Amino acid sequence: MIHCDVFFTPSEFEFPQRKDDVALVGVDILRAGTTICTALRFGAKQIIPVASTDEALNIYTKFDKSDVLLVGERNSQKIDGFHLGNSPLEFTPELVSGKVIIMTTTNGTMLFNKCLNFQHFFVGAFVNFSSVVERVSKSLEQNVSRLIFACGGQDNRFALEDALFCGKLIETLIKKFGDNPDFLMNDGAIASLELYRLHEVDLVGFIKKTSHARQLIQLGFEKDIDFALAIDSLSVVPSANGLYIVAEKA
Amino acid sequence: MIHCDVFFTPSEFEFPQRKDDVALVGVDILRAGTTICTALRFGAKQIIPVASTDEALNIYTKFDKSDVLLVGERNSQKIDGFHLGNSPLEFTPELVSGKVIIMTTTNGTMLFNKCLNFQHFFVGAFVNFSSVVERVSKSLEQNVSRLIFACGGQDNRFALEDALFCGKLIETLIKKFGDNPDFLMNDGAIASLELYRLHEVDLVGFIKKTSHARQLIQLGFEKDIDFALAIDSLSVVPSANGLYIVAEKA
Repeated sequence: MIHCDVFFTPSEFEFPQRKDDVALVGVDILRAGTTICTALRFGAKQIIPVASTDEALNIYTKFDKSDVLLVGERNSQKIDGFHLGNSPLEFTPELVSGKVIIMTTTNGTMLFNKCLNFQHFFVGAFVNFSSVVERVSKSLEQNVSRLIFACGGQDNRFALEDALFCGKLIETLIKKFGDNPDFLMNDGAIASLELYRLHEVDLVGFIKKTSHARQLIQLGFEKDIDFALAIDSLSVVPSANGLYIVAEKA
Repeated sequence: MIHCDVFFTPSEFEFPQRKDDVALVGVDILRAGTTICTALRFGAKQIIPVASTDEALNIYTKFDKSDVLLVGERNSQKIDGFHLGNSPLEFTPELVSGKVIIMTTTNGTMLFNKCLNFQHFFVGAFVNFSSVVERVSKSLEQNVSRLIFACGGQDNRFALEDALFCGKLIETLIKKFGDNPDFLMNDGAIASLELYRLHEVDLVGFIKKTSHARQLIQLGFEKDIDFALAIDSLSVVPSANGLYIVAEKA
């Protein structure tokens, strides 16, 4: 039996007593999650997710300036003086390859920062869907007894796109593993799975009508949404390494 | 156009800038919401919802002991030295009629305490469903431009029973008002409505399988769940009165 819990916002996220028997998937579909997958796939050396602008600037002083990029947004806009915002489209191989990326965003990075000491922590998004399914499956075949999805949400509120991603991943695991192991789901996991099954046939069209997407479209980021919803466009597993996030070696 | 927002946990609850144009429904289905409806229907004079045990004891000292009951739970169990816990079945007319009730619970009362200065604040539950539909409809026909559902959830996490209640209320309002007014829903409201439509035909059976219900059944409170899911068993509208909650006069 595997306990499967979806927590829709950082405030809901319950830290388990043991960390080594948990597979933890960090989810922030429309922004940081997809951006991190993109940066690592395009050769960034590591991502240091931090909660505040001050913390980002403080860590920045400790690096050789040619090795590092400051990345972040507040209210969906790039932070003044930072190299890049939180749009995955900004992250070209030319800019990010070989770089350390210090990153602070409204929803995702504060959450991911708390997850770095999990042995099995992976950033999951639609863009790396199959990669993360494979990696989580491997953890479930090991000593893991709990699968947790920690979602960034939108400004610490429930976001449908995160729930739908969790639902799709749970559905895929159920199809893959059948009844062995059984998944004992919390209310967030049950709701995610049911909402995904309802919208499976037009996932992209439906997500474009949700609250976070509507806000991003208004701000001119519609192309980012198409990018974030392109399933399996990036083969990469962002994984925790104690202090930062790296692309796990295949 | 009416903005319709469901916030699944107290942490998600966003306080609007204006309070007089908002209809606010406080939701904590399996515990405090149903208990408050019961107490007021059975003649309690007022409910004072407070966040902490200390605050409850402090307010208690200000009353004549024969007029007041201390009510509350932690971890689903009655607080030591309090008169009653949070099971609606304890609230008989003999015990509560004419009494002031000082109440502190894990999820609901801290939230409801923050709602007392809303002009249109009502506690909604399955037990008083039609009463609260009628009262909210009246507000929507007045100057209200936003409908907010503030849910207690379970230990500050998403709880399906609260979402299903919100979905049922939204569905009923949509059927009643048609397209006038239009409801512009946040992600929580969309999800609530869809989950309700999925489970409309076996709402009670489904809710008994959810996380909070499973926990209460394990603790011996299965009868409380049946009580809480008996739609329209109590005709009452718990409403804010600045400092406390009272039964609004019909």
